[in-house]
Amino acid sequence: MMFEPFWKKMSDKYNVTIGGGDLMSYFSDGNNVCWFLEPKLGAAIRRLHGVVGNAVTDDRYIVVGTGSSQLFQALLYAFTTLGGPEPVSVVSSAPYYSAYAEVVGFLRSELYKWEGDAYKFNKKGAYIEVVNSPNNPDGTLREAVVMNRTGNGNGKLIYDFAYYWPQFTAITGVADYDNMLFTISKCTGHAGSRIGWALVKDKDIAKKMTEYITISSIGVSKESQFRAAKIIEVVCNGSQNVGSVKSENFFEYGRKILSERWQKLRETIQNSEYLILSKYPQGHCLFSGKLVETLSAYAWLESKDDTKDCNEFLRGLKIIGKSGKICGAHQKFARVNLMCREEEFNQFIERLSATRGKGVINGH
Amino acid sequence: MMFEPFWKKMSDKYNVTIGGGDLMSYFSDGNNVCWFLEPKLGAAIRRLHGVVGNAVTDDRYIVVGTGSSQLFQALLYAFTTLGGPEPVSVVSSAPYYSAYAEVVGFLRSELYKWEGDAYKFNKKGAYIEVVNSPNNPDGTLREAVVMNRTGNGNGKLIYDFAYYWPQFTAITGVADYDNMLFTISKCTGHAGSRIGWALVKDKDIAKKMTEYITISSIGVSKESQFRAAKIIEVVCNGSQNVGSVKSENFFEYGRKILSERWQKLRETIQNSEYLILSKYPQGHCLFSGKLVETLSAYAWLESKDDTKDCNEFLRGLKIIGKSGKICGAHQKFARVNLMCREEEFNQFIERLSATRGKGVINGH
Repeated sequence: MMFEPFWKKMSDKYNVTIGGGDLMSYFSDGNNVCWFLEPKLGAAIRRLHGVVGNAVTDDRYIVVGTGSSQLFQALLYAFTTLGGPEPVSVVSSAPYYSAYAEVVGFLRSELYKWEGDAYKFNKKGAYIEVVNSPNNPDGTLREAVVMNRTGNGNGKLIYDFAYYWPQFTAITGVADYDNMLFTISKCTGHAGSRIGWALVKDKDIAKKMTEYITISSIGVSKESQFRAAKIIEVVCNGSQNVGSVKSENFFEYGRKILSERWQKLRETIQNSEYLILSKYPQGHCLFSGKLVETLSAYAWLESKDDTKDCNEFLRGLKIIGKSGKICGAHQKFARVNLMCREEEFNQFIERLSATRGKGVINGH
Repeated sequence: MMFEPFWKKMSDKYNVTIGGGDLMSYFSDGNNVCWFLEPKLGAAIRRLHGVVGNAVTDDRYIVVGTGSSQLFQALLYAFTTLGGPEPVSVVSSAPYYSAYAEVVGFLRSELYKWEGDAYKFNKKGAYIEVVNSPNNPDGTLREAVVMNRTGNGNGKLIYDFAYYWPQFTAITGVADYDNMLFTISKCTGHAGSRIGWALVKDKDIAKKMTEYITISSIGVSKESQFRAAKIIEVVCNGSQNVGSVKSENFFEYGRKILSERWQKLRETIQNSEYLILSKYPQGHCLFSGKLVETLSAYAWLESKDDTKDCNEFLRGLKIIGKSGKICGAHQKFARVNLMCREEEFNQFIERLSATRGKGVINGH
């Protein structure tokens, strides 16, 4: 909701109108591997990655999903049904996005199982490693670790690039991995649309992912695809006129808002008796041409006192966070979402300021 | 696509326009059990069932899904995670919708397993029976069978009412089961929207279904919900003015088209040397006030010669069908979709007519 004011301000420009007889079929493009992908959305996605420079789309199949969650599951299905013994271990470096664990485990599938922290994974045999960079919850830049740590070469990699956009981080290179996930929720803020996409090198993987989405939901909302195509097109137009009509560059707008929030947050935390925030590295951003800092979508807060439960501490301040424990980390950590509405962010800062000198943590 | 001309003709009237800053949040109604259900869609669904008289909505929770496929999976999850030993058997009377088998089996979940035809199910212990009425593929009206056949009272029932709408069948009563599934794909023809809904009596089931959809896709497209609400509202307006502006009653339009198709189909089949079509019963429809016949969305064709594979026979005529085998029935049956575009239907009839006196079936 952080980006809502940008879209509200020029809402008319991004209007879409859908007639009663439009978009009625299950099919979008019977000749495409992903037969339910609207061709206009496919074209918009390719253009967007070209404009931002964050991922290659040449020689890649695009598979659209009901958010990137569905695509993550589609990849698990593709990797594990194309052969080999099961269940396949799924890991990610802690602290990891807690939904990975939930999604892998909730149906008790015999195809795959959650094995937690990639830093602690020592089994032989097939595995799937999810690399989320910048990482939810802690904002760090990530690389795959299992192969380097253990020499186990039987891994399949999923790159979750939900936050690899210029408002969150320096675009330091054009990612060209085999399986990359993106979502419009974090890219433009349109979380309600439930549109994610995968860039996939191998045709058989793209086919199996399409099969997964066919069985689980018989495709993806055409209305959302239609609208996402429009939003992405206008974002591209705005980005290619950098400087001319400043308010129209969405990524600059996003970075400005996040930058202000991080400044307020750091000012609030620097005098805190109880909490720490780590620093992020700077990087040369190929998109903006500037040296920029990571501006994580989340505050990854750490209690100075290792024995304290950070999320409990926040709860005492009426701040809703997520415990580090469910992200595979220590309870001295907690995650707070910074992509909320302005008034919610200000309330968060206000409540956080109440920690100074009040000793609230001792109450827990 | 059969209904497309109706919607194209008055496309403007059913227009929806969505601004760039609309529908951005994951949330629709934080106070509702199904927190991602757009309140307007919920209200439209309740109104629609009231107007048509096909299901009670009082004392029912509405859970929205990415098509009714997702809701079927959500119900399986709800039934099997609320306690009891697993895997739970899932059955449906043959011939059954083949996707039930696919959905239950594709992830090899330890929570449930597909056990096929409800008429052959004799195990003790927990089971889930899906009742699809009118039934895909054969258009018959159905009731649950396991309890009556075996006395096993440990069953949970899912009523899939995708086709319980006035264009397909007489609305003979207000269904008031605990777990009922509907989808806009079949109700109005807007399959591309991927909108289904469940009417659920038990709050804990509705909560667990919401949990399933939260984990698997973090909700359901807001754009599709917004548009579905509009489409349903205008369908209700049209239905409540029966007779005044005749072209505007969608269900009458749908019945007229399907009725013409069935007449052509029966005329073509009655002289066939090779194929049979069974008759459907008539019923008094509480919606139209008339005695009406079932007009199934599918032709369930049967080879006169029991040893012949009906789908192979159709393939010889370049007709794309689905074999009875994958619906748990004999290979002498095959299903052909009648809800296609006009030109495709006419082509189907033309190709089917070629069977008369040509002995094509002997070629197989």
